[in-house]
Amino acid sequence: MSADAVTRLSGERIDHRFKGLPLDADGLTVGELAAQRRNLFTGGFTTPVLTLSAERLRHNLRLMESYTERHGLAFAPHGKTTMAPRLFREQLEHGAWGITLAVPHQVRVARAFGVRRVFLANELVDPAALRWVAAELTADPAFRFICYADSVRGVELMDAALREAGGRPVDVVVELAAGDGARTGARTEADCLAVAEAVAAAPSLRLAGVAGYEGEVPDATEERVRAWLVRLVELAARLDGAGLFTGTGLEEIVVSAGGSAWFDTVAEVFARLPGLSRPALKLLRSGAYVSHDDGHYRSITPFVRVPEEGALEPAFRLWAQVVSRPTGEQAFLNAGKRDAAYDLGMPEAQVVRRGDAERPAEQIAVTRLSDQHAWLETGPGADLEVGDWVGMGLSHPCTVFDKWQLIPLVEADGTVVDYIRTFF
Amino acid sequence: MSADAVTRLSGERIDHRFKGLPLDADGLTVGELAAQRRNLFTGGFTTPVLTLSAERLRHNLRLMESYTERHGLAFAPHGKTTMAPRLFREQLEHGAWGITLAVPHQVRVARAFGVRRVFLANELVDPAALRWVAAELTADPAFRFICYADSVRGVELMDAALREAGGRPVDVVVELAAGDGARTGARTEADCLAVAEAVAAAPSLRLAGVAGYEGEVPDATEERVRAWLVRLVELAARLDGAGLFTGTGLEEIVVSAGGSAWFDTVAEVFARLPGLSRPALKLLRSGAYVSHDDGHYRSITPFVRVPEEGALEPAFRLWAQVVSRPTGEQAFLNAGKRDAAYDLGMPEAQVVRRGDAERPAEQIAVTRLSDQHAWLETGPGADLEVGDWVGMGLSHPCTVFDKWQLIPLVEADGTVVDYIRTFF
Repeated sequence: MSADAVTRLSGERIDHRFKGLPLDADGLTVGELAAQRRNLFTGGFTTPVLTLSAERLRHNLRLMESYTERHGLAFAPHGKTTMAPRLFREQLEHGAWGITLAVPHQVRVARAFGVRRVFLANELVDPAALRWVAAELTADPAFRFICYADSVRGVELMDAALREAGGRPVDVVVELAAGDGARTGARTEADCLAVAEAVAAAPSLRLAGVAGYEGEVPDATEERVRAWLVRLVELAARLDGAGLFTGTGLEEIVVSAGGSAWFDTVAEVFARLPGLSRPALKLLRSGAYVSHDDGHYRSITPFVRVPEEGALEPAFRLWAQVVSRPTGEQAFLNAGKRDAAYDLGMPEAQVVRRGDAERPAEQIAVTRLSDQHAWLETGPGADLEVGDWVGMGLSHPCTVFDKWQLIPLVEADGTVVDYIRTFF
Repeated sequence: MSADAVTRLSGERIDHRFKGLPLDADGLTVGELAAQRRNLFTGGFTTPVLTLSAERLRHNLRLMESYTERHGLAFAPHGKTTMAPRLFREQLEHGAWGITLAVPHQVRVARAFGVRRVFLANELVDPAALRWVAAELTADPAFRFICYADSVRGVELMDAALREAGGRPVDVVVELAAGDGARTGARTEADCLAVAEAVAAAPSLRLAGVAGYEGEVPDATEERVRAWLVRLVELAARLDGAGLFTGTGLEEIVVSAGGSAWFDTVAEVFARLPGLSRPALKLLRSGAYVSHDDGHYRSITPFVRVPEEGALEPAFRLWAQVVSRPTGEQAFLNAGKRDAAYDLGMPEAQVVRRGDAERPAEQIAVTRLSDQHAWLETGPGADLEVGDWVGMGLSHPCTVFDKWQLIPLVEADGTVVDYIRTFF
């Protein structure tokens, strides 16, 4: 990855593109503003403003580094969550093998910042995007790119576009669906074998392994997820047994799974991977861990099941201001769907600030979001008035990051030490 | 508004910040790419890509211009919907009085592009933002700014911040809530009177009128909305009768309402506004009309009730590609929550393209969105395969625009004639 390109982000000018930042910072570079080490509460920041905890981010990066190391897993955290090159760099510095992405535009962002190993956890059949991938592979011998296929037709479309483009073969893993009615992926082992054979026969492609997403196992339980993971590793062995990796120059057979809900089960099953004709790259792709959350992932993280392995810490806090308090039961904040995730649960009111004093948000619940307002229900004991700031935890990092292009990174004492740029 | 600032947008470079655009356009300016007049389907655009119809946008701009003119309404379309300075300019060129916005960051964007009249349809009690507004008012004598107040405490916070900042008084309208349990706004006429008196007594503020949002009337029917609008205009008369606008130099009393669901009723009630001590500025704020939609607003637009006044046309089309077709009943597109609105209904599959041929999307329904995938259910008659492009209509413009920073403006024959930049 290019440290230079990430560093250049600190040369961007603060202006109307970025919300929540101090209005008197207009025209400063991000680096200049960061060097001022302003305080989030007294430094002129305006609401709503999303923040990330510097200490908690660091904790989460280290925890997953040690977790994957301990379990012998390679790690390509899903970059679609944050789309923040600065966080990609930190993930790579914390031992990640590469970055997982979901669509070609995201690969373009990663490549603009020099990410060398990209795992595109999706099918890719667009000729324009395939031509661009081929050109990137040709221009940079160090670029490693792997993507999915789940249909013979998809393989044909890939091969047609890539043959025209020329260059190194593109590495492809066969995607096994997580079950009937699940998301993408070939439904049966026989389907997977047909796709693998088509890949192996296509001159512009190279079969690199198998992958899937256990997060889509229907009515998931640990047993069902385990059973599907066993199918996945057996599929790798079956393709290997059929000689489909032979003579390709492939150094490692890729076996990849792992969102943010079942990586303990992935680690367990991948540890028992049958012997293959060459080493396996056991690639975990969990992405939500960086920020973690105060909702969906708080409840489903594997660390709830394996507390002895550590605990992720929620790193987001969204600050908004009470602009209206029409009755004793209602209050309204100036943050809404434009600022907070709302697809997997409402924000959680956690603290209230009035002047310098911060206290727990008691008897205050976010019940609904409009485009630009949060609706609060307050109990008789809630001490809340117009002008107060409310700090909220959020649920589902993927739909939080994508609402903010420059996010203050804040230390526990309120000092803003840097800004995280995202590209969605 | 500054035509120059909007024109300067065409000097921005195409790069990794913008999704869906041709990968070989990297480094071109927006203006250079527009001048190439590429075809959406053959010009190297990548999926997913959101488009706006040039003809339909123009139609909608003209329709609301003639509608508001015919009904004697001033128009400050809600800019939060698009946050696109280029569209603000077109709205102003089509007769709009000014632009409505929801939060200070949006005002900052509008001011960066020289919008002269801003109606902030929200309370504003943040000292940092108020200081900035005061500085803008001082720096530009032509800048007109109006915002809401709904509490005496809010008025006190405003006055404290603005007195410190100095400069011209800030115009304030009193917000009347749309009912018990509704969103922001003082609940009763007595509350409104107290707020208005506080505004009138604050040296840094000037009482400018009344406003509210009929879209939040609980269990809204035409009768309930009408009853609330009658309360709003009577409130204006009551404040006027109390002499609260006297001696302020105010030229027009502002009376404002009107989202995108009830502007026919607003027009009807505002037409019967009682006589006031000075002319009324009857300000309508509807914002969703620009793009209109294929869902929520299609069903609730007043033009359904008054077809003799015209009809809005849905201007969005989201194009995505079939990347997976695992069974005869399922298919998956490479567009998801990152690309399409999902809060007021799912996207609607409308057309399928294979090569140059476009046909209606028959027996194809979007049933669910993941972060980066759309789930399609297909009937036995659906002819759909991997590689096809699917064109979708969308529901709720506010949560569509905010997912795209540079949107191709496409003519009916597929020629991309320009690009609409948004700032969220």
